[in-house]
Amino acid sequence: MILTVTPNPALDLTYRVPRLLPGETHRAAAPAVRAGGKGLNVARVLAQTGSAAFILTTAGGAPGLRLADDLEASQLPSELVPVAAPTRSSVAVFDESSGETTVINETGGPLTPAEWTALHDAVDRLVVPATCVVGSGSLPPDAPDDVYARLAAAADAHGLPSVIDAVGAPLVRAAEAGASVVKPNRRELAETTGLDDPVAGARVLLDAGAGLVLVSLGAEGMLAVPPEGEPVHARLGTPLTGNATGAGDAAVAAVASLLAAGVSDPSALVRRATAWSAAAVLAPLAGELAPGFRDVESRIETG
Amino acid sequence: MILTVTPNPALDLTYRVPRLLPGETHRAAAPAVRAGGKGLNVARVLAQTGSAAFILTTAGGAPGLRLADDLEASQLPSELVPVAAPTRSSVAVFDESSGETTVINETGGPLTPAEWTALHDAVDRLVVPATCVVGSGSLPPDAPDDVYARLAAAADAHGLPSVIDAVGAPLVRAAEAGASVVKPNRRELAETTGLDDPVAGARVLLDAGAGLVLVSLGAEGMLAVPPEGEPVHARLGTPLTGNATGAGDAAVAAVASLLAAGVSDPSALVRRATAWSAAAVLAPLAGELAPGFRDVESRIETG
Repeated sequence: MILTVTPNPALDLTYRVPRLLPGETHRAAAPAVRAGGKGLNVARVLAQTGSAAFILTTAGGAPGLRLADDLEASQLPSELVPVAAPTRSSVAVFDESSGETTVINETGGPLTPAEWTALHDAVDRLVVPATCVVGSGSLPPDAPDDVYARLAAAADAHGLPSVIDAVGAPLVRAAEAGASVVKPNRRELAETTGLDDPVAGARVLLDAGAGLVLVSLGAEGMLAVPPEGEPVHARLGTPLTGNATGAGDAAVAAVASLLAAGVSDPSALVRRATAWSAAAVLAPLAGELAPGFRDVESRIETG
Repeated sequence: MILTVTPNPALDLTYRVPRLLPGETHRAAAPAVRAGGKGLNVARVLAQTGSAAFILTTAGGAPGLRLADDLEASQLPSELVPVAAPTRSSVAVFDESSGETTVINETGGPLTPAEWTALHDAVDRLVVPATCVVGSGSLPPDAPDDVYARLAAAADAHGLPSVIDAVGAPLVRAAEAGASVVKPNRRELAETTGLDDPVAGARVLLDAGAGLVLVSLGAEGMLAVPPEGEPVHARLGTPLTGNATGAGDAAVAAVASLLAAGVSDPSALVRRATAWSAAAVLAPLAGELAPGFRDVESRIETG
């Protein structure tokens, strides 16, 4: 199975309003509630596409109980490390007239040293039956910089590939620990390296030790930058409109599924990552691909 | 004490963002959490201004537990009727750059017939030591039309005055039951009666049986329409800017405090209601008056 690790999950609450008017009061039905967080979305996409995925995350307080309930209902295998801080919420407001979603993401509460130890102990146990390890998403406040580095190292110690989707020091440290693939988006890469050019930024992470850097470029597709040889740029020939939330998680799922199957060719990885990202944009919910996702891959242009 | 009854309370969650951008994702600290609902705000204003207030409301699910916690912390005396439906939330996003607050008010879940009976039984017990009864705020979905009428009738049976702040059929039924004062705002009165002119609309509620109709007109102050004699219009001479949330609740508190003290003169009621509304606009939180609220009353112009 592919082990996804999400240190800072969220309870996703989605309201629908006919039209969102800043400064006004709106009436709405109770929100749709869903266990969220990038690693959970990755696991959902893996489950949909036929890979066995396992979710390791944390849960605290009343929102943590609701997160656990939703995970159980979704039948995704999971282990929740109990933590004292209540699981954060992410509040989304869907505007039915514009189709736009406005999101307030809580930063979350810090984990205690004992809770971090419990999370890493769980990784050490769960990495044994794993075929690939994924670490993704923001970290709680005051998290150690080496959370994702330890994940990459634990994978490496078992001869397993790893994919890390993060930003800043935790991403650099994961690269230094030899993560197989790191996947920032263009803005996150610039924020991490201080370099606006994605190829130059990717070189920083490759020099640090990453096996491959995959940079998502939004509507312009995706760039795979290997340590040697030319970068590969993949994009869908036709423009898309839809819900970009979760597109990056679909890309991570695509990469993890290929790495788990022993495929590490940059062109193959970036091609499927771009295809699944596009299929995620066409699906209504984060963590889902539109039904035709297998056909999208043939429409991806690389160069 | 003044008994406030709130059948559909809310857990108020307030986020702060530097700037609210529709369609974008924002990061925010955990929200400020507060027991909310119009009757709770009325009780807070009464407590601040020196009247003993008692809160009768409902609580359900995890949000109901948080509501109970906050009420206990606030030291406002209260009784919570346990209900199965989780207490609704009201999510506010405060935009630090514009000073505007955008609110999503959940409609809430229905009460069972047994839960309505428990609420009315509690009213029958708590009305005995009361000096005035207040019913305010929206009702849960599928609520009987006579919820506020039964409140006004219970007050009347004990020779007590009542104030009802509602809209639609429950407001009309409360007027029919002889509520001492009904306080819709201009929009609610038009919605209830189908008449745009507030004096004409007020006459409908007076004909139904209300003792006095108080119509809040926003920046234009407030109108008291008695069954006989001329309407009294009160307003603050100077325009105000601030947070209008809770201004109507402050007006209800003003009226209840005077009625409880045996004052029922329409001019006195509308004067204090307008003053406390203005003082609420100048205070940061709903359920609070700005410290100078006693001085504001002398600045109110009536005509």
